[in-house]
Amino acid sequence: MTSSFLTKFKTLYEEKESVLCVGLDPAIPGQREKNIISSSDRLKFMHTIIDQVAPYSIAVKPNRQYLIGLTTSEIKEITKKAKGLGLLTIMDHKLSDIGSTNDSALYWINKEGFDGLTFSPFAGNTRSTSEKAHELGLGVIVLTLMSNPEAKWMITEKMEGKKVYQHFAEEVRKYADGAVVGATGHVTDNHIKEIKKEIGEKIILAPGVGAQGGDAEKLIKICGKELLINVGRGIMYAEKPALNAEKYDKQFKEIMKNSEK
Amino acid sequence: MTSSFLTKFKTLYEEKESVLCVGLDPAIPGQREKNIISSSDRLKFMHTIIDQVAPYSIAVKPNRQYLIGLTTSEIKEITKKAKGLGLLTIMDHKLSDIGSTNDSALYWINKEGFDGLTFSPFAGNTRSTSEKAHELGLGVIVLTLMSNPEAKWMITEKMEGKKVYQHFAEEVRKYADGAVVGATGHVTDNHIKEIKKEIGEKIILAPGVGAQGGDAEKLIKICGKELLINVGRGIMYAEKPALNAEKYDKQFKEIMKNSEK
Repeated sequence: MTSSFLTKFKTLYEEKESVLCVGLDPAIPGQREKNIISSSDRLKFMHTIIDQVAPYSIAVKPNRQYLIGLTTSEIKEITKKAKGLGLLTIMDHKLSDIGSTNDSALYWINKEGFDGLTFSPFAGNTRSTSEKAHELGLGVIVLTLMSNPEAKWMITEKMEGKKVYQHFAEEVRKYADGAVVGATGHVTDNHIKEIKKEIGEKIILAPGVGAQGGDAEKLIKICGKELLINVGRGIMYAEKPALNAEKYDKQFKEIMKNSEK
Repeated sequence: MTSSFLTKFKTLYEEKESVLCVGLDPAIPGQREKNIISSSDRLKFMHTIIDQVAPYSIAVKPNRQYLIGLTTSEIKEITKKAKGLGLLTIMDHKLSDIGSTNDSALYWINKEGFDGLTFSPFAGNTRSTSEKAHELGLGVIVLTLMSNPEAKWMITEKMEGKKVYQHFAEEVRKYADGAVVGATGHVTDNHIKEIKKEIGEKIILAPGVGAQGGDAEKLIKICGKELLINVGRGIMYAEKPALNAEKYDKQFKEIMKNSEK
């Protein structure tokens, strides 16, 4: 059964043929030359980026840790604008709690108007959380293989007789809508191929392209169109976000065209 | 080296001799007869509980997933009141992201005025996140052994040659300020003893007493005073929160007194 999230994604892909997802993370002091701290500055930052990147992307992904302190109606204005411009909206929440608490997160994320969220399978409740999310029409994208050096245990260790990332990928196939898979560091082509083979038509959301140096070509060749390549700093902190979004989108489309031949 | 969080905890314990931590989670629709949804209702709920439980507890612990949409200054009013009444304030955040994103969460949690936060070691970055948190004076309490049935992998699987919860407990000892340890279900006395032995004078934060049926007696006998027993629904949703807080506090003090003999 295809979830409403995957249907939305496919419909938008038919229309835009883009796999570019743009991060929306208003920097805290010390991260950029210009802080973006007040609520109004943070909202303006996100509204501006959305306006600039909408023609060249399929999704936007703000991260919860940068949005702390914004109200539900303020965030709803963000998702409303993004949806109006034909963008899928993903809350990068990395939800990681138990039953009733996750219900509360899903309630508020739904109120904010998002189409989906990222989820951490740490507490083991991918199935029950995905079922609840689907009741609300929310898609769930599960942390499956992270690429920061300290996350290498997801490759080296086992869970239920499988490698950890294989176990999480199996849960994605059974219950959720997509897998977050890092595209840098210890994550090889073979890891991505294995995960893709396991999850089938579900989406891979790959952060780390651009500033973090992830390889878009291998992602597109392996994953085809069930893919969201997230570019964060490389677009949102660029002098001209529209120009950079257009450049990445063109590059990804070129690779897609060549890999279809 | 003792962190400022542990110093605060010890000072408060000397004064109050309480190990009671009270949850502050304004229920979403369907969870209680009365919803607590508007910002003003949620704030009023938390302010009221704090007023009622302050004489009988050492800490309050709101969960982020119930506070989504509240502003930084609204939450700061909550922590300010709690601190003014001699309570330690812990944001039950289960932070679970990578470096720069965790920095943003720590920045905002610090702005909100909390003394500490809960952290998920999923991404493997307990050390770097704890170091950043300590720079801000924030304590870090690490999910070490969860008691929901789906989290049994923390007992059955291994990480770096140790059982998963042993590995996390080792990280608590080295880098953080405390361990979240479930006190129900598959978590036995021996698990708690092992974790306590590993982390030494650092704190165990045990949710699940009261509504979830966790056993306060075994916790106190094993952990002594480096302990926070969280009661959530059993106090915050009670008809008379003050009465129930007093009851739990008395019960815990009684056990503590008997186990010191």
